[in-house]
Amino acid sequence: MTDADWLRTGIGDSDADSITLMGRDVAGELMGEVTLTQLTFLLVQKRLPSEGEARLLDAILVSLADHGLTPTVLAARLTYTGAPESLQGAVAAGLLGSGSVFLGVVEDTARFLDELLGQEGSEREVVERAIGERKRVPGLGHPVHKVEDPRTPRIYAIAEENGLLGDRLRLLRVVAEVHREQTGRDLPINGAGVAGAALADLGFPAPLLRGFALLARTAGLLGHLAEEMDQPLGMPLYREVDERAVYDPPDPEG
Amino acid sequence: MTDADWLRTGIGDSDADSITLMGRDVAGELMGEVTLTQLTFLLVQKRLPSEGEARLLDAILVSLADHGLTPTVLAARLTYTGAPESLQGAVAAGLLGSGSVFLGVVEDTARFLDELLGQEGSEREVVERAIGERKRVPGLGHPVHKVEDPRTPRIYAIAEENGLLGDRLRLLRVVAEVHREQTGRDLPINGAGVAGAALADLGFPAPLLRGFALLARTAGLLGHLAEEMDQPLGMPLYREVDERAVYDPPDPEG
Amino acid sequence: MTDADWLRTGIGDSDADSITLMGRDVAGELMGEVTLTQLTFLLVQKRLPSEGEARLLDAILVSLADHGLTPTVLAARLTYTGAPESLQGAVAAGLLGSGSVFLGVVEDTARFLDELLGQEGSEREVVERAIGERKRVPGLGHPVHKVEDPRTPRIYAIAEENGLLGDRLRLLRVVAEVHREQTGRDLPINGAGVAGAALADLGFPAPLLRGFALLARTAGLLGHLAEEMDQPLGMPLYREVDERAVYDPPDPEG
Amino acid sequence: MTDADWLRTGIGDSDADSITLMGRDVAGELMGEVTLTQLTFLLVQKRLPSEGEARLLDAILVSLADHGLTPTVLAARLTYTGAPESLQGAVAAGLLGSGSVFLGVVEDTARFLDELLGQEGSEREVVERAIGERKRVPGLGHPVHKVEDPRTPRIYAIAEENGLLGDRLRLLRVVAEVHREQTGRDLPINGAGVAGAALADLGFPAPLLRGFALLARTAGLLGHLAEEMDQPLGMPLYREVDERAVYDPPDPEG
Repeated sequence: MTDADWLRTGIGDSDADSITLMGRDVAGELMGEVTLTQLTFLLVQKRLPSEGEARLLDAILVSLADHGLTPTVLAARLTYTGAPESLQGAVAAGLLGSGSVFLGVVEDTARFLDELLGQEGSEREVVERAIGERKRVPGLGHPVHKVEDPRTPRIYAIAEENGLLGDRLRLLRVVAEVHREQTGRDLPINGAGVAGAALADLGFPAPLLRGFALLARTAGLLGHLAEEMDQPLGMPLYREVDERAVYDPPDPEG
Repeated sequence: MTDADWLRTGIGDSDADSITLMGRDVAGELMGEVTLTQLTFLLVQKRLPSEGEARLLDAILVSLADHGLTPTVLAARLTYTGAPESLQGAVAAGLLGSGSVFLGVVEDTARFLDELLGQEGSEREVVERAIGERKRVPGLGHPVHKVEDPRTPRIYAIAEENGLLGDRLRLLRVVAEVHREQTGRDLPINGAGVAGAALADLGFPAPLLRGFALLARTAGLLGHLAEEMDQPLGMPLYREVDERAVYDPPDPEG
Repeated sequence: MTDADWLRTGIGDSDADSITLMGRDVAGELMGEVTLTQLTFLLVQKRLPSEGEARLLDAILVSLADHGLTPTVLAARLTYTGAPESLQGAVAAGLLGSGSVFLGVVEDTARFLDELLGQEGSEREVVERAIGERKRVPGLGHPVHKVEDPRTPRIYAIAEENGLLGDRLRLLRVVAEVHREQTGRDLPINGAGVAGAALADLGFPAPLLRGFALLARTAGLLGHLAEEMDQPLGMPLYREVDERAVYDPPDPEG
Repeated sequence: MTDADWLRTGIGDSDADSITLMGRDVAGELMGEVTLTQLTFLLVQKRLPSEGEARLLDAILVSLADHGLTPTVLAARLTYTGAPESLQGAVAAGLLGSGSVFLGVVEDTARFLDELLGQEGSEREVVERAIGERKRVPGLGHPVHKVEDPRTPRIYAIAEENGLLGDRLRLLRVVAEVHREQTGRDLPINGAGVAGAALADLGFPAPLLRGFALLARTAGLLGHLAEEMDQPLGMPLYREVDERAVYDPPDPEG
């Protein structure tokens, strides 16, 4: 034991002959044996996932990877335009906009469901009370997928097929049902909400859930940066903005 | 066709009923069917990988994911200390140090091998000439793994098992051999070098290779940030640095 | 007017002969005439500051620029270690930890004071009520400067000398006084709190206050990165951490 | 002296009663006395600038602060759209595109001039030889300011007025002259080039020059983010891109 008790890690180590992650030999036990997704599960949960857990986690990651030319993707591609020699800067820029507006729902849904699970009363009572008090219920509604978010039934199906339909996924369905009854508005469970519920059911802590979206989006960003190399969008987008923008300065005389 | 010919993308699209990536329905064709690694291959190469290609790519990603408390991991954990509400900032900070010093080798090795492949003469002649002109050969030698980097034989084995031992992986072995003969120093092929050769053999372009290390490291960073939440290292590290550091200012009188 | 009403900016424009910021000719009216601090005031407030306002803003920025080897500085220097070719990445990493833990106080203090200013009742009544309800009062107390934060009286003096002792700076003194009376603990107004109050009194909006700390810290980071170039700390810090860290992995058998 | 010789800094320190930067008391000697620009000079050069040096440095910073809705500004504003709670992320994203394409010229010009200054022969001979060998001369030409970049004569005038017309600024004029004679093309010295020459003449090292542009741009970004808060551009820009973009996916059948 070192004098600095805080200076320890369980994640990785290496010496002249071996590299170890979570106590497992990287070359002998992990490379060729596990996917990046399984490794991620191991790094966070300290155990390898079952086959079903890995399949569900991959499905969630695939569902979060990309949604076209979103603000974060545009930020990454515009950053690449100025600093193509630093791919890490473009990827980082593309992650930095993954905040409360787009990814908050993943965590908010998980936190909301956790709160409900901790309360006394029947499931319906708890949900009815909670929804009555709130203006917005996290995880419901989507600006584009107004009737059904296609990711939602797929996550439910994969969870069921693998015996992983947990408390939060089940409760989220009750939430959507009660919300519809109380408000008369039929808001579908959205993809971010179902991802939050499913990740929390898989055992990941709420403050880390956003991280899985970041991992998934890094994959999406690689696709966009590959496309940017072949077919640049950043520079012409800038040129068009620059040309069309109206300059409307304050009056210097005040 | 739009008036803006540059404003098109092949990556992602969505409408009220569906979400599409690379022309495939996300819910119907990708979720539950492909891993994040397979999706990444698809996003960059515009086709799904074979089983063997996916296995090799996963092995490369697993080999690059984490090496303990490296400078980039420390940067991420220290960033989390100051802004725990913005996980994306901590991940971004952890990626930003993934530059020429640590990851340059992946790309440098691929570029070096590409150059050699484009030259005339027998393989050995080309390699002998190239090494004779260079002080440093990218992809050889490692400060810790002095005799053998354990990742290297594993990548070669997985590539061979799957019929994916390509031109660059083979050439890199010749490079190591010729280097040993010419210099008398037995430098092993390092993990970054073999990753660069294998990624290039898989068909990824050199300027994007660093991106795969970024994806792998994002997974590693999730592990470290999960650990940081449970067992903080950033704040005590700062405190110790602050306490031990000697303040040695310039003389204000000049 | 363009068809896109949102595509307009008052900040900057240029054509073949001139560059304009906020309606002023950069070469003819700003370069050689204003400092970077005065320009920043202009860019945000759409008017140039008075001499006193500029002096107070500079004093605030100087007070926020650096506090030695803080977590954010260490993150920047460790990032430089890995990617010295991308100075922008090191600076960005150094800014990303400027979140709720260290800089939240600047904004929290301004928001708290704004709330109080909007309430009915005498100043003391309002403050007494507000403090009674709160566990923590933003802007009071400092882990190192337990008796007095030396920046605080200096900001008050400069504000007074220039006729800029505004509502929030005055109210913050009442807050500290009432807090002492109510709790018996004499917590000094800290540097972040006084900066928040002074910036808000200068007319800057609360959501932007953190930005001034970011500007000031960018200056501090340039100092640290210049030092890192001459006298590297990132690599030896990593080496020591790596050597001393105890590897304490989870049991793979679970 | 500590056992760790590398663990020392000359930049900042604090104890219960004082905060010190570069050996000077922050509250007593710096706040109210120096501008942020003067502090930056002190932090990097370990001495305060003369009045003329401060004026020249401010003029350079003002010249670099903003050029309207550039790719880096768009990246910052789009990042703010997704994560308005993390201003540091938007600023960081806005800095990350400040790489080789836009800011490289500042450093490239300084490095080129440094090389010339180190060579033997008369000034004209050295320049003639250097230009003859190069396709592109850094610091000359501008896509918009084709006849004259208005910042250039202003920097020269301020440098001259303050007795600071150094070797590099003078040499850069010879470079432009010889280039015109040799090629028949009259390319003006651009603003980035003159900034690089002037910063190097002020004594700043080439690898740090980009940092001054980063500092200046942080000021510009505060202006843009203030504008974004009042008059959002990020979300409508995304919406227009999303609406106009043509989805042109690869054929899934290959």
